[in-house]
Amino acid sequence: MKTLKIANIPGDGVGKEVVPAATEVLHAIAELHGNLKFEFTEFPWSCEYYLEHNVMMPEDGLETLKEFDAIFLGAVGNLELVPDHVSLWGMLIKIRREFEQVINIRPAKLLKGVRSPLVNPKDFDMMVVRENSEGEYSSIGGNIYKDEDEIAIQNAVFSRKASERAMRYAFDLAAKRGKHVTSATKSNGIIYSMPFWDKVFKEVSKDYPDIKTDSQHIDALAAFFVTHPDKFDVIVASNLFGDILTDLGAAIMGSVGIAPAANINVNGKYPSMFEPVHGSAPDIIGKGIANPIGQIWTAKMMLDHFGEEELGSTLLDIVESVTNDGFLTPDIGGTNTTKEVTDEIIKRIKNYKAAAVTEET
Amino acid sequence: MKTLKIANIPGDGVGKEVVPAATEVLHAIAELHGNLKFEFTEFPWSCEYYLEHNVMMPEDGLETLKEFDAIFLGAVGNLELVPDHVSLWGMLIKIRREFEQVINIRPAKLLKGVRSPLVNPKDFDMMVVRENSEGEYSSIGGNIYKDEDEIAIQNAVFSRKASERAMRYAFDLAAKRGKHVTSATKSNGIIYSMPFWDKVFKEVSKDYPDIKTDSQHIDALAAFFVTHPDKFDVIVASNLFGDILTDLGAAIMGSVGIAPAANINVNGKYPSMFEPVHGSAPDIIGKGIANPIGQIWTAKMMLDHFGEEELGSTLLDIVESVTNDGFLTPDIGGTNTTKEVTDEIIKRIKNYKAAAVTEET
Ligand SMILES: CC(C)[C@H](C(=O)O)[C@@H](O)C(=O)O
Ligand SMILES: CC(C)[C@H](C(=O)O)[C@@H](O)C(=O)O
Repeated sequence: MKTLKIANIPGDGVGKEVVPAATEVLHAIAELHGNLKFEFTEFPWSCEYYLEHNVMMPEDGLETLKEFDAIFLGAVGNLELVPDHVSLWGMLIKIRREFEQVINIRPAKLLKGVRSPLVNPKDFDMMVVRENSEGEYSSIGGNIYKDEDEIAIQNAVFSRKASERAMRYAFDLAAKRGKHVTSATKSNGIIYSMPFWDKVFKEVSKDYPDIKTDSQHIDALAAFFVTHPDKFDVIVASNLFGDILTDLGAAIMGSVGIAPAANINVNGKYPSMFEPVHGSAPDIIGKGIANPIGQIWTAKMMLDHFGEEELGSTLLDIVESVTNDGFLTPDIGGTNTTKEVTDEIIKRIKNYKAAAVTEET
Repeated sequence: MKTLKIANIPGDGVGKEVVPAATEVLHAIAELHGNLKFEFTEFPWSCEYYLEHNVMMPEDGLETLKEFDAIFLGAVGNLELVPDHVSLWGMLIKIRREFEQVINIRPAKLLKGVRSPLVNPKDFDMMVVRENSEGEYSSIGGNIYKDEDEIAIQNAVFSRKASERAMRYAFDLAAKRGKHVTSATKSNGIIYSMPFWDKVFKEVSKDYPDIKTDSQHIDALAAFFVTHPDKFDVIVASNLFGDILTDLGAAIMGSVGIAPAANINVNGKYPSMFEPVHGSAPDIIGKGIANPIGQIWTAKMMLDHFGEEELGSTLLDIVESVTNDGFLTPDIGGTNTTKEVTDEIIKRIKNYKAAAVTEET
């Protein structure tokens, strides 16, 4: 029996609603496998935790998490309780950095039965590889002077090591997909970091003669996500550009509530973290209508990560059969609750198992 | 007779096709006015000019431009001849900075007869106020180490003066429009510049008790441009965020070839510069099919700037009657040429004049 020890951090807001839903789905899918087991341990770290303890997670939090095979996270952030930069740098970004989850991968693809806000989405199917450790999200900077003279300086840090690593990850992924990598740049306006990014991209691409490449300035690229999303295969982007592009990717998928993500530790030293693109969604907390699909699709990425790609595909197929049959939460135009959609997915996983067993006998 | 001396810089690519078109339109609209005259002087500064002179514009270029009432620019950039950061910082960004064009305003609004790529664009009508002098586009930064150890550092600079100036501009604009300002931020990820930006926004907003406000992280905001563009009135954004949002704005308007812009010198010391959102569009150069509307709508913003708002409105109404009657270039689904669309606009300006004269007599 393959046992996977998972640290569940539902976090804030709808994270608390969709993580339990996806956990149930993972139990069901493990049964379908037959020889796989999930052991979940839940941690209450969140903005509410902060109010009591003045920290987002305990001092030995990282030590604790280190022992798990993966982290399954919902959403972090509740502006009414804690300023965003405090809550995010105190947990989400802290884990990404300390656990060297240097790559964030985020697919954008339209599910059957879900309507895109685009008139002509065609069949877009792309994967954004986001550099997840440095770039515009840097802890170097500060303020000087007061009042009308105040100035804030923010450093963006681009190392060849991290840039190249993200790019190679993108090329390796493209080799298994559409054999095309697009680099997100802004070297016409941002004159130190971005021409450097372009230079590294050009050099790395020489090692992959079979992969086509292009570079697009982030402004034009964002526009292309709306006008020609089907033109992309793999996109490699800096931390900030990847962040923006993947929310846009989620938007054209029909809802930010659908889009999955994975923070990958590539050196095997620490657990990876699986966390959907959406946030804590303050406007719908407690209504029971949060879309569970982002978190469930994220669970599929966790299955893939553990080498269970076949199971992952089965799960996504089942999710897609459910959306295609019209089980939809309000964010994608339906009237179903989180529970109804989740229960239907679990029911179909069980039916799938029953059918498979029948076939065998 | 009010005479306006305009420096025309067609620049690169389709700039050379749409600036002459919009210039003709401006001559026609001046005749409609009766008491207004444009005097255009053309400057060949461009990437081709660079190849001959090793600079994008002559040493005394700024001195020369200073004498004009405004600059009317097409597009800058031709990657095959000159690296983007060299051509842009050698002309476009140089003029913006040296002439203290600290505000860039860019409307996004759907023209009648032009189809948005969105299923449900509703009637969005927003104005992005982009800080145009500093932020992520800073000349401070550099590289250290070589080969695998190389690191590039890019500084983003946010001064209270420039941030506040852009915000006040946005609030003043909102007071004349929908009375709502949205601030584009990313204070959850970028922890020095963006919390500072938020702080200034909060303080400035206190001076405008009648204006509603909200703050959105740039990733979510980009997604909202696709899902709920009608929710916005005025948006204030940093240099980079404004750049990204306005290309997205152009995309939902149906084409980047339509979207207008103005770089405003607010202290009256130097000329302002009028330049559409689109670039030099290498893929369609010389085909005669570039959309002239971005440049013509930009001309309307120039009219507004010179206090000729009524004339500006008339021009935009005429442009909209032309698109509504199906005169469309290929980028917006039509088969018309630059010349056909331009000629039709000029014909209608003349008819409008004839009708006005008949009415008078
Ligand atoms: C060409 C480029 C430097 C410029 C910018 O980013 O400002 C352009 O995209 C724009 O929006 O005017
Ligand atoms: C919450 C925020 C800091 C985070 C990010 O920008 O990385 C989020 O937007 C994401 O995409 O995971």
